[in-house]
Amino acid sequence: MQESSGANAGELCLALDFGGTKLAAGLVAWRSGQLLRQARCATSCDRGARGQIADMLELVQSLRLSPAEWAAVTAAGVSFGGPVDAEAGMVLQSHHVVGWEGLPLGAELQRHLRRPVLMENDANAVALGEYRYGAGRGVPDLVYLTISTGIGGGIILGGRLWRGSHGLAGEVGHMAVRPGGPLCTCGNRGCLEALAAGPAIARRAREALAAGGGGSRTAPTALALAGGDAAAIAAEHVFRAARQGDAAAAQVVAAACEDLGLGIAMLASIVDPARVILGGGVAKAGEQLLVPVRAAFARHAPPNLAGRVAIVQAAALDEGGLLGAAALVAQAKP
Amino acid sequence: MQESSGANAGELCLALDFGGTKLAAGLVAWRSGQLLRQARCATSCDRGARGQIADMLELVQSLRLSPAEWAAVTAAGVSFGGPVDAEAGMVLQSHHVVGWEGLPLGAELQRHLRRPVLMENDANAVALGEYRYGAGRGVPDLVYLTISTGIGGGIILGGRLWRGSHGLAGEVGHMAVRPGGPLCTCGNRGCLEALAAGPAIARRAREALAAGGGGSRTAPTALALAGGDAAAIAAEHVFRAARQGDAAAAQVVAAACEDLGLGIAMLASIVDPARVILGGGVAKAGEQLLVPVRAAFARHAPPNLAGRVAIVQAAALDEGGLLGAAALVAQAKP
Repeated sequence: MQESSGANAGELCLALDFGGTKLAAGLVAWRSGQLLRQARCATSCDRGARGQIADMLELVQSLRLSPAEWAAVTAAGVSFGGPVDAEAGMVLQSHHVVGWEGLPLGAELQRHLRRPVLMENDANAVALGEYRYGAGRGVPDLVYLTISTGIGGGIILGGRLWRGSHGLAGEVGHMAVRPGGPLCTCGNRGCLEALAAGPAIARRAREALAAGGGGSRTAPTALALAGGDAAAIAAEHVFRAARQGDAAAAQVVAAACEDLGLGIAMLASIVDPARVILGGGVAKAGEQLLVPVRAAFARHAPPNLAGRVAIVQAAALDEGGLLGAAALVAQAKP
Repeated sequence: MQESSGANAGELCLALDFGGTKLAAGLVAWRSGQLLRQARCATSCDRGARGQIADMLELVQSLRLSPAEWAAVTAAGVSFGGPVDAEAGMVLQSHHVVGWEGLPLGAELQRHLRRPVLMENDANAVALGEYRYGAGRGVPDLVYLTISTGIGGGIILGGRLWRGSHGLAGEVGHMAVRPGGPLCTCGNRGCLEALAAGPAIARRAREALAAGGGGSRTAPTALALAGGDAAAIAAEHVFRAARQGDAAAAQVVAAACEDLGLGIAMLASIVDPARVILGGGVAKAGEQLLVPVRAAFARHAPPNLAGRVAIVQAAALDEGGLLGAAALVAQAKP
């Protein structure tokens, strides 16, 4: 056994991540979750779905697998940024790129890669990845939340992914936690995504700005950190300004964390997980996000649950999609 | 095979329902869910937990099982009105009667009945009963909600009960659907139970009354239906007054249904069930409850779920606990 090579027969997989802003391909030793090599490029939305597939296959080429590595690759896992029919290997919808709807992505990739292809939407895949390799190891009942351009969720119950009866379980971003609140992209109001996803946090900062909330004179505002261009304000500017003492930014962060804690309390009341794992770009704020989210959770959760659900940061913040794709392959093995 | 007798060897069970207001015992043919005989009495809270057990054993006596029937009873199922440790057969908590905490109810009953005893909290048991015999037959992914003195829930996923990692899954009544709303018995504010359980509906009617909402002169008010005693107003008076044209009562019903539909939308966003089944005393209002709840659900659910979750009335409104207890026995059989 040559454990150190990571290339034992049947121990490797290709991990493919079709995201809204980037494509990534990786070579992963799926038993350990070791990411041996990876390649990335931007998602060029104007090239359509078939262009994305071509770009992804080029990324795979650029990994330059040796013949021995190719021989050790038994399957490919795919994390896709939108709803999929996992069993049929079909994309149901893409929010970012046209031409995906109804495309048999699994079969297309299988034809090119000559390997079985397993796919899942990204939140489900990353939930499995965190369960198998990351912040959820040994915790069979967990909820993973990605807080990014949107808010999505993946639910693991008894060590298995719970997809829901229409493949829509874990739509945490579209819980109307503040009924009548801000308009969401889904058409409803007050969805968690419209309150606490990255763009919502930026929007709340712009609203505070428009309302005259300039913060203190001694700390840089989110606006200043965004180069003075209100349209360029991103969630990370708001978190950074809050860290550096800007009161208006701190208020926006506090409000978003309150809404996140409330949403997590609601889902915990229903699912009763042992752990909730936060990933996605916004979760990179770490303790600045986690501490107030935990406090809000404790305020809103049923008293008998309040102290019993750990809320932690994801282990794989940048490679979550690749490790999630690898976990799909690992999950399919005995 | 003598199917009509319902007493084939190993086909019968004792079904025991420990509720907050009544105790019930039944003899059930667990394969079909046929309730052959039953006996009931009021829960005498002042007799304590051991008094309840004695009362229940008397109810079993009063069923007057023949020797052949006793021989056909392979197990007893217990639906308990509070959190239990199903595997250990222990009561964790009772909201109604002192002396239950930590009591090994399963072992006590087993000693008296000389049969294996299976127990669950009532919402979980009734969810299983509706899945096996009632409004959820053939629907492996469902949520059962009881709307009664409180609001509880039982979740069936893939044909199996989901209890949660602390045995607290389905605490739908303590989702804070209106943050900052009315105080709940759990100490939080705006819980679904504090908005739409029977006592909450009665309280909302009293508040409307105090605010001068007397309704029309041509229809009886909830107050009139309660004999002029505001303290005696119950949810059924409010529903009846609304049916008969009282505007204030209709507003209270509409508001409670709006909150229920919102809560169901939130849980559906997470669990993605095929069906939601409403039981408990308040659900006896039937279409008067279901129609506005469905409309509110459609307004608050994510658009891709809105038309796809059936919200229906439970099949067993009065015998839910007994059939749930029988379903525990059926579930344990291959």
